[in-house]
Amino acid sequence: MALIVQKFGGSSVANKDRLFNVADIVTRTYAKGNKVIVVVSAQGDTTDDLIAKAKEVNEDASKREMDMLLTAGEQMSASLLAMAIEKLGYPVVSLLGWQAGFVTSTAYGSARIKRVEPDRMQKELDKKNIIVVTGFQGINRYDDMTTLGRGGSDTSAVAIAAAMHADLCQIYTDVEGVYTADPRKVKNAQKLEAISYDEMLELASLGAQVLNNRSVEMAKKYGIELEVLSSMTRKPGTIVKEAVKMEEMLISGVAKDEDVARVSIIGVPDRPGLAFKIFSKLAANNINVDIILQSVGRNGTKDISFTVSHSNLKPTIELLNTPYAEQLGANTVVYDENIAKVSVVGAGMESHPGTAAKMFEALFDANINIRMISTSEIKISVLIDRADADRAVSVIHERFFDKTQQH
Amino acid sequence: MALIVQKFGGSSVANKDRLFNVADIVTRTYAKGNKVIVVVSAQGDTTDDLIAKAKEVNEDASKREMDMLLTAGEQMSASLLAMAIEKLGYPVVSLLGWQAGFVTSTAYGSARIKRVEPDRMQKELDKKNIIVVTGFQGINRYDDMTTLGRGGSDTSAVAIAAAMHADLCQIYTDVEGVYTADPRKVKNAQKLEAISYDEMLELASLGAQVLNNRSVEMAKKYGIELEVLSSMTRKPGTIVKEAVKMEEMLISGVAKDEDVARVSIIGVPDRPGLAFKIFSKLAANNINVDIILQSVGRNGTKDISFTVSHSNLKPTIELLNTPYAEQLGANTVVYDENIAKVSVVGAGMESHPGTAAKMFEALFDANINIRMISTSEIKISVLIDRADADRAVSVIHERFFDKTQQH
Repeated sequence: MALIVQKFGGSSVANKDRLFNVADIVTRTYAKGNKVIVVVSAQGDTTDDLIAKAKEVNEDASKREMDMLLTAGEQMSASLLAMAIEKLGYPVVSLLGWQAGFVTSTAYGSARIKRVEPDRMQKELDKKNIIVVTGFQGINRYDDMTTLGRGGSDTSAVAIAAAMHADLCQIYTDVEGVYTADPRKVKNAQKLEAISYDEMLELASLGAQVLNNRSVEMAKKYGIELEVLSSMTRKPGTIVKEAVKMEEMLISGVAKDEDVARVSIIGVPDRPGLAFKIFSKLAANNINVDIILQSVGRNGTKDISFTVSHSNLKPTIELLNTPYAEQLGANTVVYDENIAKVSVVGAGMESHPGTAAKMFEALFDANINIRMISTSEIKISVLIDRADADRAVSVIHERFFDKTQQH
Repeated sequence: MALIVQKFGGSSVANKDRLFNVADIVTRTYAKGNKVIVVVSAQGDTTDDLIAKAKEVNEDASKREMDMLLTAGEQMSASLLAMAIEKLGYPVVSLLGWQAGFVTSTAYGSARIKRVEPDRMQKELDKKNIIVVTGFQGINRYDDMTTLGRGGSDTSAVAIAAAMHADLCQIYTDVEGVYTADPRKVKNAQKLEAISYDEMLELASLGAQVLNNRSVEMAKKYGIELEVLSSMTRKPGTIVKEAVKMEEMLISGVAKDEDVARVSIIGVPDRPGLAFKIFSKLAANNINVDIILQSVGRNGTKDISFTVSHSNLKPTIELLNTPYAEQLGANTVVYDENIAKVSVVGAGMESHPGTAAKMFEALFDANINIRMISTSEIKISVLIDRADADRAVSVIHERFFDKTQQH
């Protein structure tokens, strides 16, 4: 008998039929002798609808009141799912975040889980109840409702799995698992049987939003085995865990991220400390920088390039432009919005030299120009023109999966 | 500086404009230097919509899960009202029933308030916050959400007024106060300036559903002064309190109740104990009996008549019919559904003989036949044909208010 946490997103519980589909998955798991804790998001567009309703009343509503409003969304879906499970004849109880013991920081709208007190859930499990917990929410030290921010239900599920020492945490979603590339765009994209936490983190940060990043980080920290799978098809999904046997698999996926803009400061004097100054200035203004590249010094100057998200481009330019550029002694600041980041991710590349060369060769063969390159131990990213992005993913995927994998 | 509790029903907060209308009332009260605690129901049809949603999933959902679902309704209206108050620039905090200290019995769907712990509300008042509390709900000793049953928000408001020692509890509704008769049906129906708790209770039980009865009972118990008024017209309403100076006012209102059926057991042997047996049998089956009348014994038999609500008629007949009637030695059981109860209520009638005679005379002049009569210290009720009910209310009202009041 295992303890299994199952998380279902908003589309999985969007209406009566979907609720009963989920109730069926849950009660089948329970009927096999497992203990089951279910985590649900709000139904369908409920959260967006509530946000729209709030904005109609007050564009600048306090985050505290927004959280009070939004937490009602999961309350409704959790009780409705419990009713569906009752209808199937199984013992069930729904619990709000605070009832399930979720204690969070005070940051309304983006609270962090501080701890999950297991007493109430343990009591309900002892009573042989299936438990349905509202995801995305908790309570802070003022006894006020908080939300974890978008995607927080994944984190709720992993936190429960950690607190209750669950054997498995299943994240049900609208895709069948983690793929080597976006299956809607790349033919022959393959579902992975397994992937490591680190690879999953790299893929998620690349815009392959299958799992919320915080939930993967937490799963890694507590060694929680995750399974990403579809609530509709009932097929095995992708297991996310620490050690994944890579076999012949060089890389686990190809992903692209189009929410990226490149900024370059041209002609920065080649003196120590200038890069530090630039990036601490950006950090102080809450601007997150992704890839950073510095050209080799020439004639006593260098160029510093980096990428930011589109929403951060304007504030970045405003911060760095004259008079700041002049202060640094730099010539000018230029930027490019029409780019994309394409990456290959794979723990296997560490022990297989030549991954980067293979990727670059594929791009060269397709006549795609590389504007920047960045590498980590398990990832190689290139910046290219955005117009080339989908084609780049396809040719790289083909090179690694259609041919090389069968060598 | 006074502490004022203001309760707003679902139609008063049904949409953005209504929310801002309420926010205006609340903040004007606050701006005059008062402390204000607001109690809200769910918006418009929210509760009915949620019930319909639940029934779609599970006709026989547990009451616990129903309460979990329904309490989300006030959570949404309370936070939205708080946002509207924020928009007007006033300090405000919304609190759920349990945050406001509402501890109830465990009876899901119809919980009784056991106590209201004042600490959190006091803390928020000390911070000069306007408080918006979700009506209709609390938490039981299992830390589970409970609802007080329909109309429970009135009771929530009075309970807060009692716990916080408020100076006044205003119940905002869609009528301007308590009237001498239904103003939509009786011309010259007059709004009362004041009415006693007992009269209000009699009127409420007669179907003049301005105030929930439990809330009036609680207000009477704790001596909370109530004001019933409209959230739309901004006129003074009707004060409900202990001692009302009656002046020339014989009666405070005329009301009718059409949800009434008469049952008669004909030819019951005139032996002691039979009435007791009949009514304890009905009570044991949760059938509430209103008026009871027993004819004077004749030829060693008597007739026992009483009224029940329509929904209780069928079970009553089934319980009393043969073989039970035979067991009693009675002849037969007859019933009449096409009747109505019309009553005059007024603390003044105690000291003014002739109230009953005046009422009966009005009915006689209008050629309306009286089928049963029942009196209490402050009420006289008659059963008449339902077809005559509206006319009866009119002629009685006219007799007492258009002529006699000016004697």
